[in-house]
Amino acid sequence: MRILLTGAAGFLGSHLCDRLLADDHEVVGLDNFLTGSPENLSHLDSHPGFTFIRHDVTTPFPTTGKVEAVLHFASPASPSKNHPLGYPNLPIETLMAGAHGTHHCLELCQQQGARFLMASTSEVYGDPDVHPQEETYWGRVNPVGPRSMYDEAKRFAEAMTMAYHQKHGVDTHIARIFNTYGPRMQVDDGRVVPNFLSQALRNAALTVYGNGAQTRSFCYVDDLIDGLVRLLMADSHEPVNIGSPNEITIREFAELVNQLTGNQAGIVSMPDDQLGDDPQRRRPDIRRARRLLGWEPQISLEDGLARTIPYFRGKLGL
Amino acid sequence: MRILLTGAAGFLGSHLCDRLLADDHEVVGLDNFLTGSPENLSHLDSHPGFTFIRHDVTTPFPTTGKVEAVLHFASPASPSKNHPLGYPNLPIETLMAGAHGTHHCLELCQQQGARFLMASTSEVYGDPDVHPQEETYWGRVNPVGPRSMYDEAKRFAEAMTMAYHQKHGVDTHIARIFNTYGPRMQVDDGRVVPNFLSQALRNAALTVYGNGAQTRSFCYVDDLIDGLVRLLMADSHEPVNIGSPNEITIREFAELVNQLTGNQAGIVSMPDDQLGDDPQRRRPDIRRARRLLGWEPQISLEDGLARTIPYFRGKLGL
Repeated sequence: MRILLTGAAGFLGSHLCDRLLADDHEVVGLDNFLTGSPENLSHLDSHPGFTFIRHDVTTPFPTTGKVEAVLHFASPASPSKNHPLGYPNLPIETLMAGAHGTHHCLELCQQQGARFLMASTSEVYGDPDVHPQEETYWGRVNPVGPRSMYDEAKRFAEAMTMAYHQKHGVDTHIARIFNTYGPRMQVDDGRVVPNFLSQALRNAALTVYGNGAQTRSFCYVDDLIDGLVRLLMADSHEPVNIGSPNEITIREFAELVNQLTGNQAGIVSMPDDQLGDDPQRRRPDIRRARRLLGWEPQISLEDGLARTIPYFRGKLGL
Repeated sequence: MRILLTGAAGFLGSHLCDRLLADDHEVVGLDNFLTGSPENLSHLDSHPGFTFIRHDVTTPFPTTGKVEAVLHFASPASPSKNHPLGYPNLPIETLMAGAHGTHHCLELCQQQGARFLMASTSEVYGDPDVHPQEETYWGRVNPVGPRSMYDEAKRFAEAMTMAYHQKHGVDTHIARIFNTYGPRMQVDDGRVVPNFLSQALRNAALTVYGNGAQTRSFCYVDDLIDGLVRLLMADSHEPVNIGSPNEITIREFAELVNQLTGNQAGIVSMPDDQLGDDPQRRRPDIRRARRLLGWEPQISLEDGLARTIPYFRGKLGL
């Protein structure tokens, strides 16, 4: 297939490029490098199957020729308010990537009869009062809160995706992506995996906000990408959770990172988190993915971190 | 002030025009007549303070000259899936009125230093599990459900409004509007007030879906408009509920309509409602409006219906 991918220079986008090209698809990658990095794609410069177009998805799309699938991964994705590229500092860009960007993708799909995959997020569940989160759970999101530019953009994008499916019969798919880690993550974007790995590799104490009892479920990027590719080809239009069901507390995770990196500096607790409305628990129910896609993660957290640590070592110049 | 109002030919929009002109403001009204009606504005044709521009708010705004306030009321608003102009049948137009329309309004406000009022809705609370609904309640909305094109469009619009306030200092206001009734409602749009009044004035039995125990709180349009004008001038940026706190069951409301119209045909029960995810209870907590705006509804349901019935009689040719 010839596939258009927005956010191609991002963490997930660049891994998707690799996987789709390895599967013998042709890939047209779009990115405006607002939060994506040219480095993530530099190894594809001379790949015959890959075309890159520098473009902001909130503006009308350039002529791309015939495509058979569109995957919409363009969006700021870091919740850090201390990082200039965190979505709290790019609220309008984030909202428009979700609304205008999704609209441009779906218009293209409708015109060309292409299938669509929307990169949605576990953040549509907000700070959930149900665990683990099934796709039928409606979520608990503050529409005017400090994360609303991201959460509401993605919820809007899901609603628009369903609208094009139901109104125009577009072959749409919605992936609700949970925490993912691996090479090409931004080293300094304020998320917990880069924070911990950077601190550990510099032999600094890992900063745990609050009591560390909040949980996350981390999926290694290769597993996640495999789930996304299966979903793109599936015959289902409902949202599907793609992520790891292996819940771990932030404190346990910090201890594991210290163990795998040989960091002796321990853990320090800090009051509060960086941003309000931080979810206390987050874990996908992946029964739908198992049933529809025959998918579940294969790579353990230990193995995934072992593959990720060398990347961080390189980026940090250690 | 010179005020731009989108959705000027709608039910609420046209009443806002009247009130703002009566207050000696100049009004520039925008509408594309997708769901609004030219009849609602025909009495203003020769009013020196009123300018009308036929325009679709999802496309870039025409040159309007200097404005000091923008009020965004353009959106399909009927949940009827049986009416061609119900938002389930206009999902993409509805989503874009909330996203693209709100964006165009806020860009204009930022450029001109104008204040902004977003017409949001009680639907941001979805099918609430908290009663009455305070503004701090985050809501319970299905992002891919049959009402999601409206609910998520309005939640997105709120998030974008807060983004322009926080990022660019735009003087923004968010009204969460609850059920409102009065002259110029669409007679056939499937909402409960037009349904009941039309049936009663034709001496037909009123159709109650389910057991009729679901509640609504109906605000007469003049009261609502007064709350909106106060909010526009207020020094507050958080969402404010504007609506009646007087909750009534649908069955009690049907009985009142039959009594006021002298309809003898009674009530018939029908299984199910027209659309899924129909909220069972809906009632605003208006303490914030009382405190910030000194506002609460003044007109009783009996008085409001008495002012509305002649309009329906005229529209129905009775």
